[in-house]
Amino acid sequence: MTQQARAVETRAAIIIAAADVFGALGYGGASMADICVAAGLTKGALYFHFESKEALALAVIDVQHERATALGGELLHSEQPGLQVLLRMAFELARQLRTDPVSRAGIRLTMESSNLSTPVVRPYEEWIDACDVLLRRAILDGDVRADVDVPAAARFISPAFTGVQIVSDVLTGREDLMQRVVEMWSFVLPSLVAPERWEQLRSLPQEIADAWT
Amino acid sequence: MTQQARAVETRAAIIIAAADVFGALGYGGASMADICVAAGLTKGALYFHFESKEALALAVIDVQHERATALGGELLHSEQPGLQVLLRMAFELARQLRTDPVSRAGIRLTMESSNLSTPVVRPYEEWIDACDVLLRRAILDGDVRADVDVPAAARFISPAFTGVQIVSDVLTGREDLMQRVVEMWSFVLPSLVAPERWEQLRSLPQEIADAWT
Repeated sequence: MTQQARAVETRAAIIIAAADVFGALGYGGASMADICVAAGLTKGALYFHFESKEALALAVIDVQHERATALGGELLHSEQPGLQVLLRMAFELARQLRTDPVSRAGIRLTMESSNLSTPVVRPYEEWIDACDVLLRRAILDGDVRADVDVPAAARFISPAFTGVQIVSDVLTGREDLMQRVVEMWSFVLPSLVAPERWEQLRSLPQEIADAWT
Repeated sequence: MTQQARAVETRAAIIIAAADVFGALGYGGASMADICVAAGLTKGALYFHFESKEALALAVIDVQHERATALGGELLHSEQPGLQVLLRMAFELARQLRTDPVSRAGIRLTMESSNLSTPVVRPYEEWIDACDVLLRRAILDGDVRADVDVPAAARFISPAFTGVQIVSDVLTGREDLMQRVVEMWSFVLPSLVAPERWEQLRSLPQEIADAWT
């Protein structure tokens, strides 16, 4: 293995170790010393790759955001109807948060990022933008009513998901997250869906959730 | 002033100073030393009242939760219709978060409480319970449809508000929070309100928001 390949591999391993530590202790509770132990590295080796705890936290946030936008991008560019994609995106994100420790740590660090010198704003804006794009597509598909205030809907749906996953985390460690996302959509869809598509689309949240179980 | 009255006053002043520090730096970033400086006290005097940073954080959370439930309780026991009270509660909470530094710090600490030895769960449960009670009252009032799944609606509305206020904080420092809460209700009401009350209630969110401006 070349030196460069080894460096890339070490960097990735550090990020996974850091995600475990940040995920368990939060940004404030975690120290570079903890992360050294988790990664099995000396302080010197760790600082060679990341100059500070903040740099490491931002790297974990970046990896989580990459994973999330990778699935978002894939769905966004699929041929499926916009509303279907919007719902699948929420369920995919929920699944990622339930199963991937790096995603969990990234979300936690994003939430705590007001502790960093630069609060992390981009993920929130990008999810709102993605909702906006998909709602417009869903209007063209005829699934969403043409008179829906799309920017307002996007600015509600994305934060509502944020809150649902946070409270599910606090109350059940995200055990009940899929069911809570089904319920979220059951309360949001009536204000979005075109009346003539209602019978066809009303059970879409449950159908998408069932596809995973 | 008696010694006991002085102690109560000092304790209240410490909580306000601690709220400022926690609100600005978060739980992880704040130190007892910072709080000493903000409160104008020696370390000895501070530790006489609070044995640890965690005890102080929990005290701030308690004060915020007391203020929030005080307004919640007042609204809950008012003679107003349930749906009106439910909406007013959301707007009152939003106003409190915009204007009261102790409330802001308390919410931030609640969010960060996974860093504490006991995560703070009670406020989430109590808000969900309050939504539940008010939705049942709104069904009796005839404003909300009798076939609404009340526990599911309560488990969605309270977390949705949580997410809306968090994202408003991240993106605008809660500048736009009142407008975001109006929009939240505009997307949730259609799945709750009884069809024969729709014309009467559709502009309720905007009316309540306007009452503050």
